[in-house]
Amino acid sequence: MLSLTVPDTTRLRINGDRLRADFEELAEIGATVAGGVSRVALSNEDLEARAWFANRVEDDGFIVRDDDAGNLSGVMFCPNPNAPTVLLGSHLDSVPNGGRFDGSIGVLAGLEVLRVMKEAKLTLPVHMEVINFTDEEGCWQSLFGSRGLTGQLTTAHVSDLHTDNSTFRAALQRAGIHPEDVTKAGRKPSQLKAYLELHIEQGPQLERAECTIGAVTHIVGRSTLRVTFNGQAGHSGTTALDKRRDAVQGAALFILQAHQFVRDEYPDGIFNCGNVVVKPGLFNVIPEQAVLTVECRHIEEDILAEMEGAIEMLSQRCADEYQLSVGVVRTAHMSAAHMAELCLQAIEDASRLIGTSCKRLASYAGHDAQMLAHFTPSGMIFIPSLGGVSQNPREFSRWEDVVAGANVLLHAALKLAQEAKA
Amino acid sequence: MLSLTVPDTTRLRINGDRLRADFEELAEIGATVAGGVSRVALSNEDLEARAWFANRVEDDGFIVRDDDAGNLSGVMFCPNPNAPTVLLGSHLDSVPNGGRFDGSIGVLAGLEVLRVMKEAKLTLPVHMEVINFTDEEGCWQSLFGSRGLTGQLTTAHVSDLHTDNSTFRAALQRAGIHPEDVTKAGRKPSQLKAYLELHIEQGPQLERAECTIGAVTHIVGRSTLRVTFNGQAGHSGTTALDKRRDAVQGAALFILQAHQFVRDEYPDGIFNCGNVVVKPGLFNVIPEQAVLTVECRHIEEDILAEMEGAIEMLSQRCADEYQLSVGVVRTAHMSAAHMAELCLQAIEDASRLIGTSCKRLASYAGHDAQMLAHFTPSGMIFIPSLGGVSQNPREFSRWEDVVAGANVLLHAALKLAQEAKA
Repeated sequence: MLSLTVPDTTRLRINGDRLRADFEELAEIGATVAGGVSRVALSNEDLEARAWFANRVEDDGFIVRDDDAGNLSGVMFCPNPNAPTVLLGSHLDSVPNGGRFDGSIGVLAGLEVLRVMKEAKLTLPVHMEVINFTDEEGCWQSLFGSRGLTGQLTTAHVSDLHTDNSTFRAALQRAGIHPEDVTKAGRKPSQLKAYLELHIEQGPQLERAECTIGAVTHIVGRSTLRVTFNGQAGHSGTTALDKRRDAVQGAALFILQAHQFVRDEYPDGIFNCGNVVVKPGLFNVIPEQAVLTVECRHIEEDILAEMEGAIEMLSQRCADEYQLSVGVVRTAHMSAAHMAELCLQAIEDASRLIGTSCKRLASYAGHDAQMLAHFTPSGMIFIPSLGGVSQNPREFSRWEDVVAGANVLLHAALKLAQEAKA
Repeated sequence: MLSLTVPDTTRLRINGDRLRADFEELAEIGATVAGGVSRVALSNEDLEARAWFANRVEDDGFIVRDDDAGNLSGVMFCPNPNAPTVLLGSHLDSVPNGGRFDGSIGVLAGLEVLRVMKEAKLTLPVHMEVINFTDEEGCWQSLFGSRGLTGQLTTAHVSDLHTDNSTFRAALQRAGIHPEDVTKAGRKPSQLKAYLELHIEQGPQLERAECTIGAVTHIVGRSTLRVTFNGQAGHSGTTALDKRRDAVQGAALFILQAHQFVRDEYPDGIFNCGNVVVKPGLFNVIPEQAVLTVECRHIEEDILAEMEGAIEMLSQRCADEYQLSVGVVRTAHMSAAHMAELCLQAIEDASRLIGTSCKRLASYAGHDAQMLAHFTPSGMIFIPSLGGVSQNPREFSRWEDVVAGANVLLHAALKLAQEAKA
């Protein structure tokens, strides 16, 4: 066994200027006029960002690794080939017309942490790896890459069993990812020591608390539901009021009541109606159908299930009111996840070490850590989002907070890596 | 001056079997599996129906006439070239997936009336003309043909001044109609004696009253409004409830309140929200924008204007409730029209003559007669729609009612034609 040196790592700090240069360079890829980025997964811009990242990994002297789900990594191997890996990362893809910080800073800070460790000539008892996960945002399928790494992809995810995935397969193939192989991306839990992710909060909690670091305790569970109200089309001018079965009126009642209901009964829950599609959609025809895309979120899995049931019952009452029928289909689900106490403490210790404020909070957004948490001890570090704004070109975090977050990532990673000795 | 014979026209009746044969043949053009027709204006099916109609007109020994707005007629000229014309007609185009009766029976019955007059060897003091108006349904522009004939088309209707009309122009050109010439379709009011249109009611009034013939007093005025609520996009999971500016919630409140408001304050008015388009329309983003297509109808023009103003104020109150902005734009308007007493009496007299029940009623649907009414004395004959159903493959009228309607059209036309002597 090698003698492992742990020489005064407490004084190590990331290089903020170097990180900043990477951040600015990456933000040029898919830059929008409004000051944000559009780097939708598997788009030209996303492929350009991946190539940029692979080059940077190589230039920095790390090993470029990719897997069958398109996840792209930089690895710093330790002498013991059987050692587990401490994984750091996030994602380089964005929502359409998104911000520059979401995802990016987690990947870039992970890479910077590896550089600092390499420069310090640390010999760690673990492999260190920084990873960019495929399609976190779900342009095709939410958390596709982290689902793949944790062995949760099945052929159904790329087949046409439930939906037409032909364009998704074409996009994967164009990126050099073979759809038939995505199920092979799974690793073994024993290969990982822990996962850490730095991310912007995308909410207002840290800013309101005037706190720099958030140690995430839970990641919210969420279900997407397709709620379809069916009535009867008819001439808007001539159909008697008492004969109308107007799908849009039923949908409007449901939208208002569901928001109110969740506010009253599930104050920790979230409800959103993000889309409405009306058929036939003509000015002079009473709407026959209204299809709503709604979303429920809760940090406790069992309460989320209860909430979904109550929402479905509410949709039935609203349909009855207008003599409509209604169908509710769950089109997506992400289980709520608890972060590991091990990681929470590493984040809190690291914050203390670099002298920055830290508070525990829950994440109401989904993240790759949600998939990893069921697989390996996982932790998430949040930094404040100005005004809580996100998924928007106006998304902004102060650079000093990005640097603080990256330093917490460094020291939390060091702690988890060094503990691996024991 | 010729000696005009008026030989016992009271015993003239249309040939129901011949009319039926035309009806069945026409219904094959654009027939849908559900038993209706799709003959959207200027589509292949519409062009086929026009060609069929032109052939039938020619076979029956009448003169085929078309004008610069694509209106297609069969004319039976009287000896005096300067005589005015009694115009009968409606439209052969349909809404997508529409019914077989809407429009068709008005054109076919008009042609049958001309045949009966010809067979009876009547010499009338007027030209008789049956017309098929272009795009009554408004696939491109509502009442396009009747607007053209009454001199109400301007170059703005086919230019790109307000909207992109390039595909409309292409469709016109394909049908042999030159966009630059549509303004030349206008006739002079002195060229017409009167206009009569047989149509299905598309509503439940006649069926409920167990009455066969409706003599239309007013045609409803209608305005189409585009109501745009603007809020702010944000992450649905992380945006605090008190920070949300959700365009869909404001729109839902408006939809419910506007229906209620019109029911309470304008019991003779009609309100419909036929479409909702949400941006960005993603499950996990709070909607930034909701664009509603709404329609107001009233048979009195001044009350319609008042209603529109009140609806706009209501939209503002609903926007305020959710900290949204709102804009209301009137995208289309059809003035309300009064039918001529002359024509109403001719219809009532004709009903009495053939021994069928008749009542006066208002039309809550728009018709070509609405354009003609501001141009020449106009009248509309309604027959019952089973269950009031229309713009739907299940649209149905009893054949005996179609025959009764055609006979009323015949005798009302005869009365107006013969009065022209005086």
